[in-house]
Amino acid sequence: MEDCIFCKIVKGEIPCYKVYEDSEVLAFLDISQTTKGHTLVIPKEHFDNILFTPEDIMAKVMRVAQKIAQAEVTTLHAQGVNILTNANEIAGQTVMHFHVHVIPRYDQNDKLRLEFLSNKLEKINLPALAKDISKEIK
Amino acid sequence: MEDCIFCKIVKGEIPCYKVYEDSEVLAFLDISQTTKGHTLVIPKEHFDNILFTPEDIMAKVMRVAQKIAQAEVTTLHAQGVNILTNANEIAGQTVMHFHVHVIPRYDQNDKLRLEFLSNKLEKINLPALAKDISKEIK
Repeated sequence: MEDCIFCKIVKGEIPCYKVYEDSEVLAFLDISQTTKGHTLVIPKEHFDNILFTPEDIMAKVMRVAQKIAQAEVTTLHAQGVNILTNANEIAGQTVMHFHVHVIPRYDQNDKLRLEFLSNKLEKINLPALAKDISKEIK
Repeated sequence: MEDCIFCKIVKGEIPCYKVYEDSEVLAFLDISQTTKGHTLVIPKEHFDNILFTPEDIMAKVMRVAQKIAQAEVTTLHAQGVNILTNANEIAGQTVMHFHVHVIPRYDQNDKLRLEFLSNKLEKINLPALAKDISKEIK
């Protein structure tokens, strides 16, 4: 896609610090380095986010993300890793080309904040909700 | 694994609100419901986290996570989705059985806080770092 920064990285028009490359997948250091080793894994072909990515390509991207996470534990002595992808702006996606973040963790006081707050369960009809989602899964 | 709450859910010893099931993968509503429809996807077999999960099983879990995310956009009218997995306590993992969170997003003021703060890049030797990770990837 013409104005996509990640497509430009794939084409070599914008430089990157490459961590991994094969015919379909590219991984490079995230320029923000939320933690040391923060890496992005992308398909070379443009898909807006995981919702629109064919499942075989999504799986290839995730296999590379897993390998990078394992490598970061070994080589950078990370104590843990977050692997995540954000679909759409409301979820925090800033570049509209599917990418998976691999974020090694060393220290609870680092630069990533990930907080899950519970909702009041009585407001949610859980059996109906499970059924609603379930019936839509192809 | 004997004391694993997710293994007990797989065996039916603890109830869950099931969203999806096949021979290898189970998905059910997260009891915290960070947002409405917050779902966990797990392999039925016990692996501590993504670092220790065989890649074919990890890929199957991710395919189900993707389908659930797509279903949540369709059926719950989510505006976006976060898909993430945390490996080890330092990364926020609380149940030590590999699981992927699928968290639909409706509203920026919801119960999920996800904040990436940048590190000062001059402190990090990016070319050396990319090389260090790269050489460990099998």
